[in-house]
Amino acid sequence: MPNPVLVEVTRGSLVESRHSGSVAVVDGDGRVAFSLGNIEANVFPRSACKAMQALPLVESGAADAYGFGDKELALACSSHSGEDEHVALAASMLSRAGRDVEALECGAHWSSDQRTLIHQARTLEKPTALHNNCSGKHSGFVCVCCHQGIDSKGYVGYDHPLQQQIRDAMENLTGAALGHDVCGTDGCSIPTYAVPLKALAHGFAKMATGHGLGPERAKASRRLIEACMAEPFYVAGTGRACTELMQIAPGRIFCKTGAEGVFCAAIPEQGIAIALKCDDGTTRAAEAMVAATLARYFEKGGKEHAALTALANKSMRNWNGIHVGDVRVTAALTE
Amino acid sequence: MPNPVLVEVTRGSLVESRHSGSVAVVDGDGRVAFSLGNIEANVFPRSACKAMQALPLVESGAADAYGFGDKELALACSSHSGEDEHVALAASMLSRAGRDVEALECGAHWSSDQRTLIHQARTLEKPTALHNNCSGKHSGFVCVCCHQGIDSKGYVGYDHPLQQQIRDAMENLTGAALGHDVCGTDGCSIPTYAVPLKALAHGFAKMATGHGLGPERAKASRRLIEACMAEPFYVAGTGRACTELMQIAPGRIFCKTGAEGVFCAAIPEQGIAIALKCDDGTTRAAEAMVAATLARYFEKGGKEHAALTALANKSMRNWNGIHVGDVRVTAALTE
Repeated sequence: MPNPVLVEVTRGSLVESRHSGSVAVVDGDGRVAFSLGNIEANVFPRSACKAMQALPLVESGAADAYGFGDKELALACSSHSGEDEHVALAASMLSRAGRDVEALECGAHWSSDQRTLIHQARTLEKPTALHNNCSGKHSGFVCVCCHQGIDSKGYVGYDHPLQQQIRDAMENLTGAALGHDVCGTDGCSIPTYAVPLKALAHGFAKMATGHGLGPERAKASRRLIEACMAEPFYVAGTGRACTELMQIAPGRIFCKTGAEGVFCAAIPEQGIAIALKCDDGTTRAAEAMVAATLARYFEKGGKEHAALTALANKSMRNWNGIHVGDVRVTAALTE
Repeated sequence: MPNPVLVEVTRGSLVESRHSGSVAVVDGDGRVAFSLGNIEANVFPRSACKAMQALPLVESGAADAYGFGDKELALACSSHSGEDEHVALAASMLSRAGRDVEALECGAHWSSDQRTLIHQARTLEKPTALHNNCSGKHSGFVCVCCHQGIDSKGYVGYDHPLQQQIRDAMENLTGAALGHDVCGTDGCSIPTYAVPLKALAHGFAKMATGHGLGPERAKASRRLIEACMAEPFYVAGTGRACTELMQIAPGRIFCKTGAEGVFCAAIPEQGIAIALKCDDGTTRAAEAMVAATLARYFEKGGKEHAALTALANKSMRNWNGIHVGDVRVTAALTE
């Protein structure tokens, strides 16, 4: 059975486009609190699981050894826009470990945020690996290798000791077996492992609650999630969904997007986490879906509920500022 | 019944995202030669019908009065990237009618093509209405008004005489009744009318063949389609799908994309036209769908078939140039 339509894009009085998808809300013990569509299907988390991938940075002691605070940890979990502050902080993280941009194996790209790209075009000849949206994560990877005395060369490879540590942590969190059969290569060249959507949500619920985790992993998980909630600008950037969603309820919402329409989130005080996937991989729909799902866990009439509902139902204006239609969630998400 | 999945996006050995949609291939007499999904559903053609909207420019005599050749007519049918040549030609069209950028009511925006945006950021403080992807169409609109002695002010409005002429032409071509009930506002502020996908394909088949049209409309239709095929760069731009598709078989393929996953095309020598819509509005899928549908009408083993099939099945490489997956059409489109 196909997944339900969860987001509609209107123009005038008609629906112009439709997005289907699946949503899993799970608690720390793996109980499903809410779901739509097939939550057993395998999904590549892509960048949505960067906080999981950052666990070795904290657990190895590297973060403490290099004096990393919330900003650095948030950047290690980020898909940033390549704004000047992001780029400078990634360079600073590398320098604490005595390394520089040459150590990064993520590749270089211009910002995908228009305002930032215009600024980059006017100030740079071309972008470096520090401008890559994954440079904070990769700087964290290099720091782990340096701190552990492992050669960082080839750290993006499936068989490199760092990726083995990441794979172990993700297996522990999601309960899924991660091997070559479910492995793809991510945009920044590291392995990405497809896991059932429900298992992804459960993994984040374990991070948010500590349930089922050893004390060190529970502490590291909590520290990473709190760092992201404390420094949402360093998780994404100006005007970006992850940043805006976490700013709506400071310290209460954690969230992180991934390519191809994935979004993960957690509400630690309620002991739940969310994982969702838009079938067609579209960002506008995944953003509406996560805002509407989060809104279900905030009081109706409260300002957080209103702000989340507004992000789940955005009006679209054209080049002259005329209202032409809306991106809105369907009743499946709101009832 | 939902529309079939027509495009899959893979990563590693798994399918990561899926796009469903509908396709209509119709001849000049309205006979359906091939279809997938619901082709009776209303679809906003958006920019895919710009060649229809350019008919008054030719039929009124404005194009001849102002000395417009293939390049100007192609630009009047275009969604261009805002490259320097596009911007200069739009300005030149307006100057022939004694007007300038101030006459345009489409609004301004930066290029959505990354390479062009970087160039614009380095050479412009901000874009003008000439950089709007619709500036060629709007320059043509202003020229019609000037030639006909109509005040061009408010030419984007539903009740303006120009939009009435366009509505009449589109009703004649598609056979659909176009009124407020199916009207939305396009990105450039003009009305866009939802019509059944089959009717949209039939309209383009009539333009390509002249079937069912009066001699003047048949001649003007042919002239616009031939202008686009002769000057594909002016219909879109460097590296853009419309331009590349028409370059594959010069003078044999006409095509034009529209926002929200619409694509129209015609193969005049075979007397058929195509209209298709990706349900979720995604460009990558609409491009794959139109390339695969066009390929059905070219000989297997020939270079056109091979080039179209290559555009319908593109490999995706990451920032380091590593092959990570593919955008590929499903058997529904190729069998």
